[in-house]
Amino acid sequence: MRKLLILSSFLVPSLGLAAEGMWTLDHLPTAAIGQQYGFTPDAAWTDKVMHASVRIAGGCSASFVSPTGLVLSNHHCALSCVEQLSSIKKDFVKDGFLAATPAAEVRCPEIELNRLDHITDVTETVKTATAGLTGAAFRNAQNAVKARLTAECAGDNKTTTRCDLVDLYHGGRYDLYQYHRYQDVRLVFVPEKSLGFFGGDPDNFNFPRYAIDMSLLRAYENGKPAVVRDYFPFNPAGAQEGELTFVTGNPGRTQRLLTVAQLETQRDIVIQHHLLNLAQLRGMLTQYGAESPENARVAATDLFGIENSYKARLGQLQALQDPTLMARKRQEEADLRAFAAKDPALSSKVGGAWDAIAKAQTIYREIEPDYLTKEIGIGFDSQYFRIARALVRGAAERAHPDQQRLTEFSEAALPQLEQRLFSTAPLYPDFERVKLTASLTKLREILGTDDPFVQQVLGKQSPAQVATQLVAGTHLGDVAQRKTLWQGGERAVAASTDPFIVLARLVDPAARAVRQRYENEVDAVEQKNAELIAQARFAQLGDKVYPDATFTMRLSYGEVRGWPERGQNVPPFTHFAGLYDRATGAEPFALPQTWLAAKNKLDLQQRMDFVTTNDIIGGNSGSPVINRDGQIVGLVFDGNIHSLGGAFYYDPVSNRTVAVHSGAILQALKYVYGADNLVQELTVPTTH
Amino acid sequence: MRKLLILSSFLVPSLGLAAEGMWTLDHLPTAAIGQQYGFTPDAAWTDKVMHASVRIAGGCSASFVSPTGLVLSNHHCALSCVEQLSSIKKDFVKDGFLAATPAAEVRCPEIELNRLDHITDVTETVKTATAGLTGAAFRNAQNAVKARLTAECAGDNKTTTRCDLVDLYHGGRYDLYQYHRYQDVRLVFVPEKSLGFFGGDPDNFNFPRYAIDMSLLRAYENGKPAVVRDYFPFNPAGAQEGELTFVTGNPGRTQRLLTVAQLETQRDIVIQHHLLNLAQLRGMLTQYGAESPENARVAATDLFGIENSYKARLGQLQALQDPTLMARKRQEEADLRAFAAKDPALSSKVGGAWDAIAKAQTIYREIEPDYLTKEIGIGFDSQYFRIARALVRGAAERAHPDQQRLTEFSEAALPQLEQRLFSTAPLYPDFERVKLTASLTKLREILGTDDPFVQQVLGKQSPAQVATQLVAGTHLGDVAQRKTLWQGGERAVAASTDPFIVLARLVDPAARAVRQRYENEVDAVEQKNAELIAQARFAQLGDKVYPDATFTMRLSYGEVRGWPERGQNVPPFTHFAGLYDRATGAEPFALPQTWLAAKNKLDLQQRMDFVTTNDIIGGNSGSPVINRDGQIVGLVFDGNIHSLGGAFYYDPVSNRTVAVHSGAILQALKYVYGADNLVQELTVPTTH
Repeated sequence: MRKLLILSSFLVPSLGLAAEGMWTLDHLPTAAIGQQYGFTPDAAWTDKVMHASVRIAGGCSASFVSPTGLVLSNHHCALSCVEQLSSIKKDFVKDGFLAATPAAEVRCPEIELNRLDHITDVTETVKTATAGLTGAAFRNAQNAVKARLTAECAGDNKTTTRCDLVDLYHGGRYDLYQYHRYQDVRLVFVPEKSLGFFGGDPDNFNFPRYAIDMSLLRAYENGKPAVVRDYFPFNPAGAQEGELTFVTGNPGRTQRLLTVAQLETQRDIVIQHHLLNLAQLRGMLTQYGAESPENARVAATDLFGIENSYKARLGQLQALQDPTLMARKRQEEADLRAFAAKDPALSSKVGGAWDAIAKAQTIYREIEPDYLTKEIGIGFDSQYFRIARALVRGAAERAHPDQQRLTEFSEAALPQLEQRLFSTAPLYPDFERVKLTASLTKLREILGTDDPFVQQVLGKQSPAQVATQLVAGTHLGDVAQRKTLWQGGERAVAASTDPFIVLARLVDPAARAVRQRYENEVDAVEQKNAELIAQARFAQLGDKVYPDATFTMRLSYGEVRGWPERGQNVPPFTHFAGLYDRATGAEPFALPQTWLAAKNKLDLQQRMDFVTTNDIIGGNSGSPVINRDGQIVGLVFDGNIHSLGGAFYYDPVSNRTVAVHSGAILQALKYVYGADNLVQELTVPTTH
Repeated sequence: MRKLLILSSFLVPSLGLAAEGMWTLDHLPTAAIGQQYGFTPDAAWTDKVMHASVRIAGGCSASFVSPTGLVLSNHHCALSCVEQLSSIKKDFVKDGFLAATPAAEVRCPEIELNRLDHITDVTETVKTATAGLTGAAFRNAQNAVKARLTAECAGDNKTTTRCDLVDLYHGGRYDLYQYHRYQDVRLVFVPEKSLGFFGGDPDNFNFPRYAIDMSLLRAYENGKPAVVRDYFPFNPAGAQEGELTFVTGNPGRTQRLLTVAQLETQRDIVIQHHLLNLAQLRGMLTQYGAESPENARVAATDLFGIENSYKARLGQLQALQDPTLMARKRQEEADLRAFAAKDPALSSKVGGAWDAIAKAQTIYREIEPDYLTKEIGIGFDSQYFRIARALVRGAAERAHPDQQRLTEFSEAALPQLEQRLFSTAPLYPDFERVKLTASLTKLREILGTDDPFVQQVLGKQSPAQVATQLVAGTHLGDVAQRKTLWQGGERAVAASTDPFIVLARLVDPAARAVRQRYENEVDAVEQKNAELIAQARFAQLGDKVYPDATFTMRLSYGEVRGWPERGQNVPPFTHFAGLYDRATGAEPFALPQTWLAAKNKLDLQQRMDFVTTNDIIGGNSGSPVINRDGQIVGLVFDGNIHSLGGAFYYDPVSNRTVAVHSGAILQALKYVYGADNLVQELTVPTTH
């Protein structure tokens, strides 16, 4: 489960049902929790939980689990790091990784951790800056105030302080989130992928489940393990059936209150086109991986991401094709419009919002082929191209004042961007060639052979010829070259003859043009009008609502509980015994030698994975499951198949979070991997 | 363009608009043609046209073009034959094929030609046999009468006479079509694929177009070229803009009057799932082909079929997602229901038909995973498996009386089945292994790891392991083995230890079970109730309607005409000069040496491809375009992008047939290929 790419999105609140909701930490439904479970989180509890939780900036969640900076997350959240540290000679993905001593912990080239320290309400400042503006003016003013606020917030400590402007309730509220930033993050432990992803794609989004989808990382500062005040200690007993559980983390994106017109765009266009592209990539990378073990290794992370997205998107599509869901959404929209129509003042303000959003959908449908291929990058799927674009755009944007830049090149955004740009992770030219060939072919397919842009890109050559020449001629695999171009700015980029730089220069005007149309004519319209709809909804339902997910810190509450499936109840726990029963010896159900050897030492009745009613979504991968005492009872790594509709609505009957049991983690570390030192570190009693 | 696999279909009539309609030859709209174009086809004209047209039983159309059995069709209709005759040493797909002398003409292993000789109305016989029956009883009785009628019609001449029962207007009319059958069909000429499919997938379903998508075959009888009375001679001048054109051929399947519930099944389920499967196969085969030139050669025909279906299905999906189309279909349905409701007698008979069909959709959605994987074969995509299933089922079915068999094993169907079963076309074990691995993986994905059937098939192994062992262990690549098993019947099949036979025996009960549910609870319900809806429509609109397409002989009329596209008119003709302009040197826009060398000899102003308003669909590939004098003026090979919605409605404004110009064919044969003897044969004046 990953943070999903969402093209068209906006944020509006929804009513909290039982266990429903991804709540911001400064507006927890404490009364409801107290009423339902007899426990009311207080300020100290919330403060500790906030500081012990941590975000992986690339798209996952995690938590501190020791006073010396040990971080717990998922195997699949560390997978790209594990792959980047592997080579044809040593495959840590296959074999797992355990740093026997602190000195053996290895830095991940692209992982940044963010710990949320402060939330500041800046709603008035932002609204004042954009008051009365629309379209491009609105967008530019918002970017400017965002750049100013985040730069002021981070001050001179950009390398250790990160500030993001967070848009909640779609313009209903703007908060400034100040994070402590860790860019020196080292790999401590991952199991073999065959355990981390036991059951593979077939078991993904399913339960009963038998995976140890965990990783341990460590945050470093000044070359030493980071000392942290707040962390979650392990509770080996876990949580019992019906027990209250909390999940903190960073749900990526929900779309629970899209208008019907927007849902139709998702159903007929956005999800559809992504699914077809994913299916083709899946076939291609599967076959590429079948060519040799080394190819399989190189393609593994991409293939995992593709299969994961494919399944998630297919679930979303099926949810949107469910006539019951759409009928309900239509009814809700009709009710809200009727409510607004009854109040003349409200009506005059928000009455046109739905039609305005519907009109923006027409524009989206019109520009989508250009937007997907040129800006989102379906036409240029290569790391080399992404690097080249960052260099070309970065040079141009950094020549502007901070407040006038594209938002991903603002001063506040540069540290994370530079970490990725100068990553020492290896690139594999043959793999890049294969992906680029496919995507240039897709570019021609979507825009047409006779499209002038396509003709500019391909000239008289085939996609395969163009891709081969680009990859053969580029020096962007060399980090030093990237640094030179980055530091050399516009002049260096303009003078470069690197074929990918040349391509990125060629593509950029067209890509910027369609991005501008998207932002001004689609996104800005959706945002402005969704804010109006949100006002109507506040008026209708009051303020006991939570904002849609924004890949920022949220807390959900729920309990350990199975669900009814075709007349049977699915029990909430699995056990180690079930793992051995399910193992066939063939991938993805093969157990490595470590686990076969350790079978006699393990308690086979140890609970392994479990489900809860917590409301989560992609981005929550790696989230801790904690009890009321702030102890780790589990590690979120997935949702069940019914959770996929959670993008659009929360179904308390069958939507379930899937987690690894805390006791299973400790047993595995101790008896399978002999990591006694880690077990000891994870079970240090908390000092306050 | 190919005959498309359609899972759920039925036939109902529609009103003929200008140029709309795929008309049966015994019910031509002669008055309308006469009124519009001043030409009224008479009985002699129609008789000649019927006998000069010919069907390729595997899914294409064609025509006789000389008195000695020369047959004109598309390159892509002969492609599988050309591939089957090729080897790693000699690739006729790439290089083309020209038999310098009659002795050099080579037999195609799997092509059967059918020339329609007689149409007999057997409506009363069939209706009497099924009167008052429903569900399984209806289905069995219909199969029985079908077997009896076709067997009686073919008599003892099964090898040269073929009879099919044709269900028109969905049970409104049953006709017995008697064909002359040719199974000795030899390859005479194909151009290089780079001409036959110039522009490849990017240009497919597009226009302007520059392909010579032609093949010449020859029907043989008793080892000698077949002598035919009726054929179409070439008219080198072609047809002028606005000139009346006829297309004869075998449109595969239209679904123009599905109920809204059925259209939603197509939109949300059937097309969706096929597209996703096709996209993944496309990625896989593309990458497989990229591994080596030999792999590319082996995968080419499959890949062509997949890309062609993908584009066609995507166009269909987009048509069904068009709110205008769906609104129109809803309105038409509402009007028809209102019309029926006004007449108590009609209403009591047909009033429940729409709801009954809607209910069958629910059942289809429920059984679709099993149906697609087990019966349609998405779970077992291998030629070996298809052979094994034919042997296993064939043995069981042939033990039953003709009238009690599954319809594809009736006596009338056996000659075509045996031709394919005993085909000498090579099988490529590695390619079969790759496809089977992917499809067994898909089987597990769709039905789930814990499905008992999946566990039976895979046991403790991975899909790759199972596929590898099956392919390594089978002897079904040997035609002699197949013959032995076929002739040995049930006992031989039961005793066989060939792993594919073992697998087919394992799968068959489950596959038959879901097929039976589909036939009885979905197909029979749709058929019975669609017949009722058709009666209502006849009552509403009269009998000036044509039946939906059934891959049987039809005639459409129209004219040479471009269409308006984004404010511009697309001219109806392209010319040789445009081919040379479009050629880039890179596939699929590369010209072979033959064409580069011949450029100076060709008239570059010769018309090359053109479009007409004729109403066609997949299955019409290879159809002749003839003028009122029965002369070849073109060769249908495609429709434009707007023709893809033709599955559901005919749009006279933009739906266009795409054809090769008769003059271009003659010039190519003469100046590029030096086939003077063929040019001479094609331009023999007709003798009557």
